[in-house]
Amino acid sequence: VSRVLVTGASGFIGSCVLPGCLKSGHEVHAVGREPPQGQSEVRWHRADLLDPTATVALMESVRPDLLVHLAWYAEHGSFWTSPENVRWVESSLALIRAFALAGGRRAVMAGTCAEYDWTAIGEEGRAGKTLPRCRELSTPLNPQTLYGAAKYAANLVAQRFAQSAGVEFACGRVFFLYGLDEQAGRLVAAVARSLLAGEPTPTTDGTQVRDFLNVQDVADGFVALLDSEAQGSVNIASGQPVTVGTLVETIARLAGHPELLRRGAIPRGAGDPDVLLADVTRLGKEVGFTPRIELEDGLAATVDWWRERLGSAARDSI
Amino acid sequence: VSRVLVTGASGFIGSCVLPGCLKSGHEVHAVGREPPQGQSEVRWHRADLLDPTATVALMESVRPDLLVHLAWYAEHGSFWTSPENVRWVESSLALIRAFALAGGRRAVMAGTCAEYDWTAIGEEGRAGKTLPRCRELSTPLNPQTLYGAAKYAANLVAQRFAQSAGVEFACGRVFFLYGLDEQAGRLVAAVARSLLAGEPTPTTDGTQVRDFLNVQDVADGFVALLDSEAQGSVNIASGQPVTVGTLVETIARLAGHPELLRRGAIPRGAGDPDVLLADVTRLGKEVGFTPRIELEDGLAATVDWWRERLGSAARDSI
Repeated sequence: VSRVLVTGASGFIGSCVLPGCLKSGHEVHAVGREPPQGQSEVRWHRADLLDPTATVALMESVRPDLLVHLAWYAEHGSFWTSPENVRWVESSLALIRAFALAGGRRAVMAGTCAEYDWTAIGEEGRAGKTLPRCRELSTPLNPQTLYGAAKYAANLVAQRFAQSAGVEFACGRVFFLYGLDEQAGRLVAAVARSLLAGEPTPTTDGTQVRDFLNVQDVADGFVALLDSEAQGSVNIASGQPVTVGTLVETIARLAGHPELLRRGAIPRGAGDPDVLLADVTRLGKEVGFTPRIELEDGLAATVDWWRERLGSAARDSI
Repeated sequence: VSRVLVTGASGFIGSCVLPGCLKSGHEVHAVGREPPQGQSEVRWHRADLLDPTATVALMESVRPDLLVHLAWYAEHGSFWTSPENVRWVESSLALIRAFALAGGRRAVMAGTCAEYDWTAIGEEGRAGKTLPRCRELSTPLNPQTLYGAAKYAANLVAQRFAQSAGVEFACGRVFFLYGLDEQAGRLVAAVARSLLAGEPTPTTDGTQVRDFLNVQDVADGFVALLDSEAQGSVNIASGQPVTVGTLVETIARLAGHPELLRRGAIPRGAGDPDVLLADVTRLGKEVGFTPRIELEDGLAATVDWWRERLGSAARDSI
């Protein structure tokens, strides 16, 4: 039995990673904002990972063989430019140093499609006839955002450090995700909530192509990456292109309010690339993982979850 | 008068930066391992920059307008792979955050030619007819070493953070340097000392092309970069190619012992690129700086310095 420590364990991905780690037969230790509910097999630890002293004490106490580091600043909207990104670079590096010192064997950290050079992807898209894809080993990495730069920096240094320290290292690059219990301001949650509340729902023109994956598949992908021998960066994504327009129309149909959608009412952001789509060859061949949840099914479950939640909130307020 | 804080101020480059900052009319504050000698105008501070609390206290006490961050782990030989590189990423990011919080206006940090993708340079070299040059805006950045990755990560995150925080930021990418009072194990110092001691001196075959700059020019380049409005990365280098063979033969001639050189006695390291040469267009045009010390003159002064030093050591031991 290997002992795994999961950080960010009460987060969107982290809370879905814990059951998968248990199913893989690991002894699961977790650190996060709040203890997991109904998961008595998970050993919970309180620690402020932004405090290097607390990080060292945690690692010395748990002495994990494996690490899944998901904790990061993720507040919707502000996470792109917040100085908290810088603190999480510092904290993530202190974490992997402490992990190696405590005898850790293999670490997996969360990366992001924002690590890729979005301007280079755009050029490939204009030149080629097929949709451009982000490839781990060939797409240039030149993140323009603070968030992307911080994630890339943390993963790059952790990877080179791990090589020197004799620790296995992999980074799961996450693209777009959605699922139950998502932050209310994020795209799928916001559109579903607004439509279910019967409100007119403005969106962008929706022509941008994205790669959406259900958070449970993202989490299962991380567990598969942890249990594999793959090293370096691996896209954890669907590989299936969908326009944002198709996505929001599907949500509107499932919510029963296609007439409330106001496409084009919001301008797209500056620097927003036309296509962000993953190549998932490494995920399939080297990690041996294939996503299981179809987008339509995952969106239906998500809309149902919000409908139930908003319904019970309405009943509570009667 | 602007107030500048120089870190690494007792280091190889830092000790040469202090007079330049004074000459520029700045109020100069410095932090380093030991107080500067004979520079009473420099205000010295004791602080362990690896301790984030000490860094914040230093910034709040000095409240500098300008920052020249040169401190890093630089022990000859071990600096390529030492975990100290990871700690300096953390510390450098904590430093720039504290600098911005304390009202800082412009920061300059030290980068390295090891940030460039040396494999990509090699490919350009084989394909082209002229020597390939590292260009700040077009040469791929994919450092293979922990040192290069750590420097790149710190500079990338600091740059994106500075953009968000409204702080000007520039990174001076240093190539190869030499000069008075260099660490005894580094190339020019080691060869000069060995030859002056009358010992057979093994070197590599010396076919590799490098970009060498006198440390005083490197330091003056940093001061010019500080006083300019240039942002982003700028190579601080000579732009003049020289083979290591020519370099060591020049030293041998100046030391009076060409017969002691044993070229080819040491194999070149794995991953050692054939050519590492800077494009210095940005340094010249955007910073307005041109190096002043010819390689031959700089090497002569360096050999004389070691001759004097070894001579007085020999006299002391009589």
